[in-house]
Amino acid sequence: MSELEADYAAAGFDGRLDFGKRPALLMVDVCNAYLDPASPLYAGVESALASNLRLLAAARAANVPAVFTRVAYSAGGLDGGLFYRKVPALAAYLDGNPLGDFPAGFGPERGEVVITKQYPSAFFGTALAAMLTAMGIDCLLITGFSTSGCVRASALDALQHGFAPFVVRDACGDRAEGPHEANLFDLQAKYAEVISEERACELMAGPRPA
Amino acid sequence: MSELEADYAAAGFDGRLDFGKRPALLMVDVCNAYLDPASPLYAGVESALASNLRLLAAARAANVPAVFTRVAYSAGGLDGGLFYRKVPALAAYLDGNPLGDFPAGFGPERGEVVITKQYPSAFFGTALAAMLTAMGIDCLLITGFSTSGCVRASALDALQHGFAPFVVRDACGDRAEGPHEANLFDLQAKYAEVISEERACELMAGPRPA
Amino acid sequence: MSELEADYAAAGFDGRLDFGKRPALLMVDVCNAYLDPASPLYAGVESALASNLRLLAAARAANVPAVFTRVAYSAGGLDGGLFYRKVPALAAYLDGNPLGDFPAGFGPERGEVVITKQYPSAFFGTALAAMLTAMGIDCLLITGFSTSGCVRASALDALQHGFAPFVVRDACGDRAEGPHEANLFDLQAKYAEVISEERACELMAGPRPA
Amino acid sequence: MSELEADYAAAGFDGRLDFGKRPALLMVDVCNAYLDPASPLYAGVESALASNLRLLAAARAANVPAVFTRVAYSAGGLDGGLFYRKVPALAAYLDGNPLGDFPAGFGPERGEVVITKQYPSAFFGTALAAMLTAMGIDCLLITGFSTSGCVRASALDALQHGFAPFVVRDACGDRAEGPHEANLFDLQAKYAEVISEERACELMAGPRPA
Repeated sequence: MSELEADYAAAGFDGRLDFGKRPALLMVDVCNAYLDPASPLYAGVESALASNLRLLAAARAANVPAVFTRVAYSAGGLDGGLFYRKVPALAAYLDGNPLGDFPAGFGPERGEVVITKQYPSAFFGTALAAMLTAMGIDCLLITGFSTSGCVRASALDALQHGFAPFVVRDACGDRAEGPHEANLFDLQAKYAEVISEERACELMAGPRPA
Repeated sequence: MSELEADYAAAGFDGRLDFGKRPALLMVDVCNAYLDPASPLYAGVESALASNLRLLAAARAANVPAVFTRVAYSAGGLDGGLFYRKVPALAAYLDGNPLGDFPAGFGPERGEVVITKQYPSAFFGTALAAMLTAMGIDCLLITGFSTSGCVRASALDALQHGFAPFVVRDACGDRAEGPHEANLFDLQAKYAEVISEERACELMAGPRPA
Repeated sequence: MSELEADYAAAGFDGRLDFGKRPALLMVDVCNAYLDPASPLYAGVESALASNLRLLAAARAANVPAVFTRVAYSAGGLDGGLFYRKVPALAAYLDGNPLGDFPAGFGPERGEVVITKQYPSAFFGTALAAMLTAMGIDCLLITGFSTSGCVRASALDALQHGFAPFVVRDACGDRAEGPHEANLFDLQAKYAEVISEERACELMAGPRPA
Repeated sequence: MSELEADYAAAGFDGRLDFGKRPALLMVDVCNAYLDPASPLYAGVESALASNLRLLAAARAANVPAVFTRVAYSAGGLDGGLFYRKVPALAAYLDGNPLGDFPAGFGPERGEVVITKQYPSAFFGTALAAMLTAMGIDCLLITGFSTSGCVRASALDALQHGFAPFVVRDACGDRAEGPHEANLFDLQAKYAEVISEERACELMAGPRPA
C-alpha cells in the first residue's frame, strides 16, 4: 500500500462494494477511433481490446448480458452540446464515420443491446439505467476507452445510479499511462472496485449469491 | 370558464408562463404509426399532421430550431424496459418497421436534429435537455401524438427541466376525444400553456423580448 | 369493459406488468396541504388518508420499505423553477409552512426515508431512483395526492425508470372526480396497474416469487 | 506546455468553451468536514476557503447568483445508496452532524439557494439543472472540495447538462496534491476551462456579451 493509499484508507475512503446477483458486462466505446492508427484518438490499446474479446466470450458463456456503447453525432454535432464544442476530436464520431464503428470481430450478437451516446457517461442522455433496472441488473463489469474519460464517467454514474461498478483494469486503456493510473486510483478510492480480467471472469462464472 | 376551471383557478392553479427569447419547435412522434390506417395505433389525426406541416414551415421561416422525435426499439424491445412490456402495441417501433418512420413530406432537413427515444417523455433517456440548454433554448412549442401519452409526458418534463412548454392544441392528436381533452385540461391547469396553431405562429414570428 | 377500454385493448394498450420480488410503498405528498380545510389545495381526501394509514401499517408488518415524499421550496421558490411560476398555490410549501407537513399520526419511523421534492414527479430532481436501485427494489405501490398531478407523474417516472408501478386507487385522491378518473384510466392503459387497497395488501403480504 | 499536454492538443482535445452571458457561482461542499482538523476528511484547504470567500463577495457585487451545495444523509445512509457503502467517511454527513455545516462566516444569504445532495455530482439526484435552466444560467464558475471528487463530478455534469464549466483552481482543494493536479489536467483537457481566481473575478465583473 502506497503512502497515498494509506492516507486515504485512514480517512475512511476505499470501502468495499459487494458483487451482486445479476451482473452485466458494459463495454464502453470499444471502437475504431481508439484502435485505428490513422485516427487522431488512436491510443495503442490493442491489449485491452484482446481483454474485451475474452471478457465478452466469458460473459456469453455465463449468460451475463453484454451491453455495448458507441458514440454518434448528427446535425454537425448539435446533439453533442458543449462536449462536442470542447473536444474537436469528437468529429471522428460524426454521422457515418467508420471510426465510430466496432472493430472487426467485436460487436453485438442478436439480442444484445447497443447504447448510442453523445456524452462521456454511458448513462447520460441514454436509457441505460432504465434498461438495467428493468432487467434486474445490480452490478456492472466495466471496460473500454478511455480510462480517464468515458470509463471513469460511466463508472461514477453506475455508482450514482445504484449499480455496483467493477472496473476491469486490463480491459481499459488510455492514450497515456499517467491519466490511466491516476483515474484507476480515484475510482478504487471512491467509486468502484478495480479488478483484474482474471477476477472478472471468476465473478462472471459464479457461483453468485442466491 | 367551466365550474371545474373556476374551482382550479380559485385554488391557485393555472398561473401563466412567459414565452421566452429562444423557442424551439418540438414535434413528438409524428410518425406513420398514428397515420397509417393499417397501423394498430392509427388515430385519425390527419388534421393535426397538416397543422404540424404548417408549424414546421413557420418555424423554418422564423429561424426557430425544429426538433423531431421518433421511437425505436432493438433487441426485441429489451431497450424499452417496462414500457415495452406494458404496451404490446409498441412492437410497431421495433427495428426497421416503417410505422416508426416520418410520414411522406414530413421530416428533418440538414442541420435539424432527430431525437430517438424509447419512453413516453422526449426527455427521458435522451440528451434532449442537454442539447436545448447548450443551444440556449428557453421555451418549447410542443406538438404531436398522442396528447394523453407522449405529448403530455414531454410537456411535463419540459416544465420540470425548465423549458416553458407551449402545447399547440391543433397540432396534437389522440385516438379518442375524451383523453385528448382531459389531458389538455390537466396540462393547462398545472404544467403548460395550451395554445392554438395561430397563436403559435404569431409567437414564432416575433417580436420577442430582447 | 367500456367502449373506450375495448378500443384501447384492441389497439394493443393495457398489457400487464408483473408484481416484483421486492416492492416498496411510495406515498406521494400525503400532507396537510390537501387535508387541512383551510388550505387552498384542500381536496376532501380523508378516506384516501385512512387508506394510506392502513397500507403503511400493512407495509411495516410485511417488511416492505415505506418511502414518503414531501414538497418544500426555499429562496422564494427559486428552487421550484417553472413549476413554482406556473402554480401559485405552491406557495403553500414555502419554507416552514405547516401545510407541507405530514398530518398528525402519519409519517416516517426511524429508518424510513423522506424524499423532499420540488416537482410533480417523485423521481425528478431527487435521488429516489438511485436509492431504490441500490436497495434492489423492483416494483412500487404508489399512493397519494393528487391523482392527476404528482401521483400520475410519479407513476409515469416509475415505469420509465424500470420500477413496475402499482397505483392504489383507494389511497389516491384529487380535488375533482373527473381528473381523478381520467388519470386512472390513462395510467392503467399505458403506464401502470391500477389496483384496490385490498389487492395491495395481499400483494405486500405475499407470498412473492423467490 | 508539457509533453502530455502537447500530445493531447495534437489529438484534438482541449478546445475552448466560451464564457456565457449569465454565469452563476457554484460552490461545492465547502463545509466543516474538509476544514475542521478533527474531521477524518480534513484536507488542509484553508487557502481555498479564503478564495471562496473572495469569490462569493465578488459574485454578490456583480449580481452573479451564488449556489451552495451540501451533503446530508438520513435513515442511516439509506438515501446515499452505493456511494454511502463505498466511502465509510461519509458518515460525517449523517443527520445533524456539524461537519456537514458551512464554516463560520460562509453560507447563503436570503434568496440564495442551498442544494442538498447525496452523491458526488451536484447535479445527480438534485433539481440543480432544472433551476439553472429556469434561471437562464448558461455557465458556471465551480469551486470547492474535493477536486478529485465532487468538483470533478460536478464539472463533468455541468458540461453534460449544457452549462459551460469554469473551474477555479485556487478555490478548489484536495487532501493530496497528486489527485488535485491530475484531475485539473483531465478537466482542462476534456470537460472544462480551469482558471485562476483573478480571472474568475474579471469574468464575473464583466462586461459580458449582450
